[in-house]
Amino acid sequence: MAEDLVIREDRGPVTHLTLNLPGKLNALSDAMIAAVTAQFSDLMASETQRVIVLKGAGKAFCAGHDLKEMQAKRGGKDTGAHAFRDLFDRCARMMQMIPRLPQPVIAEVHGIATAAGCQLVASCDLAVAAEDCRFGVNGVNIGLFCSTPMVALSRNAPRKQVFEMLVTGEFITAARAREIGLVNRVVAPDALAAETEALAKLIAGKLGTAVRIGKRAFYEQLQLPLDKAYEMTGAVMVENMLNRDTNEGIAAFLDKRTPDWSQD
Amino acid sequence: MAEDLVIREDRGPVTHLTLNLPGKLNALSDAMIAAVTAQFSDLMASETQRVIVLKGAGKAFCAGHDLKEMQAKRGGKDTGAHAFRDLFDRCARMMQMIPRLPQPVIAEVHGIATAAGCQLVASCDLAVAAEDCRFGVNGVNIGLFCSTPMVALSRNAPRKQVFEMLVTGEFITAARAREIGLVNRVVAPDALAAETEALAKLIAGKLGTAVRIGKRAFYEQLQLPLDKAYEMTGAVMVENMLNRDTNEGIAAFLDKRTPDWSQD
Amino acid sequence: MAEDLVIREDRGPVTHLTLNLPGKLNALSDAMIAAVTAQFSDLMASETQRVIVLKGAGKAFCAGHDLKEMQAKRGGKDTGAHAFRDLFDRCARMMQMIPRLPQPVIAEVHGIATAAGCQLVASCDLAVAAEDCRFGVNGVNIGLFCSTPMVALSRNAPRKQVFEMLVTGEFITAARAREIGLVNRVVAPDALAAETEALAKLIAGKLGTAVRIGKRAFYEQLQLPLDKAYEMTGAVMVENMLNRDTNEGIAAFLDKRTPDWSQD
Repeated sequence: MAEDLVIREDRGPVTHLTLNLPGKLNALSDAMIAAVTAQFSDLMASETQRVIVLKGAGKAFCAGHDLKEMQAKRGGKDTGAHAFRDLFDRCARMMQMIPRLPQPVIAEVHGIATAAGCQLVASCDLAVAAEDCRFGVNGVNIGLFCSTPMVALSRNAPRKQVFEMLVTGEFITAARAREIGLVNRVVAPDALAAETEALAKLIAGKLGTAVRIGKRAFYEQLQLPLDKAYEMTGAVMVENMLNRDTNEGIAAFLDKRTPDWSQD
Repeated sequence: MAEDLVIREDRGPVTHLTLNLPGKLNALSDAMIAAVTAQFSDLMASETQRVIVLKGAGKAFCAGHDLKEMQAKRGGKDTGAHAFRDLFDRCARMMQMIPRLPQPVIAEVHGIATAAGCQLVASCDLAVAAEDCRFGVNGVNIGLFCSTPMVALSRNAPRKQVFEMLVTGEFITAARAREIGLVNRVVAPDALAAETEALAKLIAGKLGTAVRIGKRAFYEQLQLPLDKAYEMTGAVMVENMLNRDTNEGIAAFLDKRTPDWSQD
Repeated sequence: MAEDLVIREDRGPVTHLTLNLPGKLNALSDAMIAAVTAQFSDLMASETQRVIVLKGAGKAFCAGHDLKEMQAKRGGKDTGAHAFRDLFDRCARMMQMIPRLPQPVIAEVHGIATAAGCQLVASCDLAVAAEDCRFGVNGVNIGLFCSTPMVALSRNAPRKQVFEMLVTGEFITAARAREIGLVNRVVAPDALAAETEALAKLIAGKLGTAVRIGKRAFYEQLQLPLDKAYEMTGAVMVENMLNRDTNEGIAAFLDKRTPDWSQD
């Protein structure tokens, strides 16, 4: 069942989603895409969950599409064209849900993150990586250029560095991934879960409405020219200021006391 | 008076503007925004000043908005909505004057630069930072997401790094700020003034018209697609070439002599 | 003759183009621009060449425009305006051919890459640099702001770092160029040719159609908003999947054998 493919565990306001197809390195099969999409849809409307941690069971974070399943789509009059288009559309919709989720999404990366798995890391808001993990968009090695993964990757890292990954198919280390902007933090493998959880809890402790307001505005303003970005975010600041809890938060800060955010 | 809130000192062609509200960590109060705006307006038309250094008096560069003053705007039928909108509009206009100023503007940063103070650094053309100073967009800690600061910040640094600062509210060091693109140079605290001055003088020694032409084109081309950016900057290069002093500058270079830029 | 200004050498599927005006540090004179443009035009339609290496003869990669030739264009009623416009248009067209070439183009940089020479590095898809080479957009030193070079440069590196180079005219090292995103790899000077060749061969060994499809999509998607970028690259993935050799490449990977790409 789709439920088994992604394990959801809520630890207070932090939801952990575990891609659970370790025998296939958590490949983004049709069923996996459906399962992740269903979880995201559910969380889109959540009033309680404030942060999402996305991780993989077994040896790897995610190794991209399920190639065997893809090959099976060939055939028919169009030799698979419609089925492939449908697959890439479903996958792209899933990736684009991440910036639209009200919760910050943290990728907790270990082992490898390749092709659409690397795209998944790039699509998350934040990423924490084990220092021995590796990243690659290596589809070119089998003749399938990672054209959809590059959309997310090139919005995280400088173009020459992304282009190199795409045409060489080579892996980069976690340290290099941090240098180019693909991950936020690199930690020892046995500290990965704890460090990610600490980051998630830190964010979950902030005022939920402020984080929701801010995340939504973040991606919107990135695609606007400077003056329009300021116009839009100015309105967002007003909305944020008029929030009851923000009033309380600022008042508490000025009074040097802890805010009462019990209504949040 | 507004004049006292920002101290202007002209050292030859280099203008130093000092935010001078040290008791409030140079908060961007209504009066401070007005004072900075007035100085920028004056410099916008200057024929003599070639570089601007922006810095803060006391322990910090700038700690963002004046929260006490903001809280006092609450009330009335709209619970402050109009007053907040007006504040963020005035602040955004001030920030957007920086790329439009004909002079390169260098932030000389010490202590802390937080929230709208960090936005001010990001909005400057260049930044020199003392190695012990810290940067943060920490409004989230009091329930006010730094939505306007993120506009400037996300145009300087990669998105995952900016998002992390926004949702964690954590400080980053000057060294890390340089790694992600937010500052140009990190220097010892007791060398900060001298290093910034040296950079300012270096730029002030260039042909003024060339720098003006170039700065204006720089921000314009950033917002254009590649072909339009080349079309526009091609016209700018022609304008630059037809300048009397550029003719002299190139001729002097070819003759291996010092250019006579006395008319500049 | 134009042919002599750029030496073309095909080593199997890798084409080496050498700017060959060492006495002028490979200046982009009218004739040089024409010669490079002619080579690019020829390669645009090539069915055999898969990677292009661009390098310079003598002491430098390229030192930008031919200033003496430019000065000679002054005169006439318009004091050279038309001739300058024509020059910058031809140069910009040449630069913009690089992302449109079906082959990845690698700059092999030694000595110096300045002004339009630095622009040429930035315009290439990839760059390998000798560790003792230097990069600069130093036109400002002679009164000519590098307005066209900044178009390419600011699409490679963060804006504050680019602005600093533009207004100071100072050189940066190869190591710093890699930090800010302008080059991919920095190697010992005596390893430059071998390392670049190894990178070129690595890329030339990939499926040619996949690389062509991917490169074309790479630059197109960079200029699109997220949803449109996914829509476009989704179609590109389908096109790629339907390629005979991609089918073979995936099948071979699943069968753990070497693909038969003899038809590529």
